[in-house]
Amino acid sequence: MHTLYHLPLDPGSRKIRLLLREKGLDAELKAEKIWERREAFLRLNPAGEVPVLLTPDGSVIPDALVIAEYLEDVCPEPSMLGKDPLDRAEVRRLEQWFDRKFAREVSELLLEEKVLKRFLANGNPNSSAIRAANQNIHYHLEYVGWLAERRNWLAGDDVSLADLTAAAHLSCLDYLGDVPWEQHGSARDWYARVKSRPSMRPILADFLPGNPPPEHYADLDF
Amino acid sequence: MHTLYHLPLDPGSRKIRLLLREKGLDAELKAEKIWERREAFLRLNPAGEVPVLLTPDGSVIPDALVIAEYLEDVCPEPSMLGKDPLDRAEVRRLEQWFDRKFAREVSELLLEEKVLKRFLANGNPNSSAIRAANQNIHYHLEYVGWLAERRNWLAGDDVSLADLTAAAHLSCLDYLGDVPWEQHGSARDWYARVKSRPSMRPILADFLPGNPPPEHYADLDF
Repeated sequence: MHTLYHLPLDPGSRKIRLLLREKGLDAELKAEKIWERREAFLRLNPAGEVPVLLTPDGSVIPDALVIAEYLEDVCPEPSMLGKDPLDRAEVRRLEQWFDRKFAREVSELLLEEKVLKRFLANGNPNSSAIRAANQNIHYHLEYVGWLAERRNWLAGDDVSLADLTAAAHLSCLDYLGDVPWEQHGSARDWYARVKSRPSMRPILADFLPGNPPPEHYADLDF
Repeated sequence: MHTLYHLPLDPGSRKIRLLLREKGLDAELKAEKIWERREAFLRLNPAGEVPVLLTPDGSVIPDALVIAEYLEDVCPEPSMLGKDPLDRAEVRRLEQWFDRKFAREVSELLLEEKVLKRFLANGNPNSSAIRAANQNIHYHLEYVGWLAERRNWLAGDDVSLADLTAAAHLSCLDYLGDVPWEQHGSARDWYARVKSRPSMRPILADFLPGNPPPEHYADLDF
């Protein structure tokens, strides 16, 4: 059995939870409060970040991107990257789009201001950062809709790491009630299909005490 | 022949220039002033960033990480990732270390404040960002030295994308005269070995009019 050090509202952790399920691999989840900088955890990952995967033979793999490529290397079926090098490049391009661009312009801002600052009791939320993220998300949802109207899944014919990565980010924000689905029908239709995948079930069941999700969060017909 | 849209002091662009050379692939370099947001370039890469690779058959691959994985997929020998999944994970872990952590804590700060702001005539350099980067770099050079004392190359026995990525970042800063090599002998010994690789020659010959490198920049015995 794998062990995954994670945080419930961390997009990288959610991506790996989804990927493990899509590949039919079980993992025990351990929530790691990275802000406590626990020494035993820093020995596993000197960068001090989640996710970190412990494999059944005791190997330690940190970083969502590194873990995803590792799981593709050791468990290539079902592939979430595809076979053709150009298809794989398109999947990875969209993975980077969400993990870097969407993160910088939307999800890191909202998660830092609305979640991390509360846990750390570290100052008041910065309302201009929240406002910027709430504006930027529209442009990204347009892009998701544009892709989903032209392709079966975001990167092409098959579900891929691009869909899992986008869903990882958007599901965190949806937990906060911060995704304006009603203005983005094509993106919502795509997300409804993602939500109905069995790999999403544990994520839709996530519940943070004192910080419940909005009603539509787990609703497949939202 | 490949075409690479790049910028001379962009670490991602330098990584791909190094990787192409290590794999024996030729590429025509085209400097792209991304701040002009040229429409034809935005059609190639909607993210508006370099590097972007045009393959001989006209395919477009954006993003240093995506290009690196693509080149490994289509031209696996000589591999810069290795064969064993755990070795590959260690290479990718260090790639992420430099492309995310070192970038955020050191190279993006210095390149943005000292280079980009000058090209954009966009305000004065932020001296506290520069001071933070100049402090942070010591900790990263310690880590490079620590790895280089224990391994033949940064990620293990063989030269890899980890070395190319670290060299891509550090060579940009070395061009600015911002790497305190004299205080970090083990890191300097590793960089001297990287510098002597044929793939580094074009990078050591880079010259920005009005902004020449310090004398030691191209010196193999610095």
